[in-house]
Amino acid sequence: MAPDKFSFTLDLPEWAIEEHKRLPDALPNLEDRMAAVIEFSRKNFQNETGGPFAAGVFERETGKVVVIAVNRVMPQNCSSAHAEIMVLSLAQHILGTFDLGGQGMPEYQMLSTWRPCAMCYGAVPWSGIRELVVAGDGPELEEITGFDEGPCHPDWITELNKRGIDVINNVLRDKAIELFKEYAASNPIVYNGRMGERE
Amino acid sequence: MAPDKFSFTLDLPEWAIEEHKRLPDALPNLEDRMAAVIEFSRKNFQNETGGPFAAGVFERETGKVVVIAVNRVMPQNCSSAHAEIMVLSLAQHILGTFDLGGQGMPEYQMLSTWRPCAMCYGAVPWSGIRELVVAGDGPELEEITGFDEGPCHPDWITELNKRGIDVINNVLRDKAIELFKEYAASNPIVYNGRMGERE
Repeated sequence: MAPDKFSFTLDLPEWAIEEHKRLPDALPNLEDRMAAVIEFSRKNFQNETGGPFAAGVFERETGKVVVIAVNRVMPQNCSSAHAEIMVLSLAQHILGTFDLGGQGMPEYQMLSTWRPCAMCYGAVPWSGIRELVVAGDGPELEEITGFDEGPCHPDWITELNKRGIDVINNVLRDKAIELFKEYAASNPIVYNGRMGERE
Repeated sequence: MAPDKFSFTLDLPEWAIEEHKRLPDALPNLEDRMAAVIEFSRKNFQNETGGPFAAGVFERETGKVVVIAVNRVMPQNCSSAHAEIMVLSLAQHILGTFDLGGQGMPEYQMLSTWRPCAMCYGAVPWSGIRELVVAGDGPELEEITGFDEGPCHPDWITELNKRGIDVINNVLRDKAIELFKEYAASNPIVYNGRMGERE
């Protein structure tokens, strides 16, 4: 039995760690925050370090960057290592709490390249973030890239609002769609569940 | 900047590692598999190493145990460290693949103490498992323990079936309800999102 059988580690690729050094401490403008997230998405597939998805956790008011993370499913053999799970887990690790909405803390938001998949959507209420910001939420992501986004709740915004979480949509939508088209043109492996197999 | 800022590790508590040594290699009977999962749930809250939830990944035909994991949210400061995310990630780590339904592999199933929360439900289609087995799916879990299970898709079984994943329900249902009652009687902290705060 390998000593690390009961433990797993997920991390960001080297380029993303370098990229963090070049980021300013804060991005006061919401579009600048999304532009940074989209750029991480692009670099992730260009560097072949994961799928074309990134997400960032920021202080809502100031835009202070907590961390921006990327999809790590294939390189790290973990189907749950989507960008949103990565970024929420890293933000909680950095801030030393399982609850980003804890008492006495600033309010945090998560930015994501598109409406999160069913799993990452379900992770939002548990994270403590106060706001989810997405570039878009239509069928374009699935249509352009071929990724399945899974069985998300049909009233996804209402259900978050009920839990005290705001949603902001359509921030740099065109730039996200441009990214997905670049990805699709790169002849990628679209993994999905069981490589898209159905029985 | 801490050297491990961009990396996080999740693991099982010591007692669970010891417990694995006592498990047989395989549990041919489905109820025995669920009994083992429920016992891990119980030990997890009794040992104060996480919430009263466990999940196991097994070979569907033989009952060979891949791994049984537990909720680690509070001790490891990670709101996504639910039992199902833990067990799928550990199984993929152990087997060296992000896809438990890959070609040439035996079929795998996940057993969970109850219908998974919205996040863990969404993780199922990405994992490659062929079957989800739960002790129950009614409101009892939320009513007895106070945990919010989140905005799960209303047609949750149909949506899994569409993706080639079978669902078996009501395996040792009474034993799971007994567990939740024991947990509720232990005067626990029920964390939920932002400790249940709503605004």
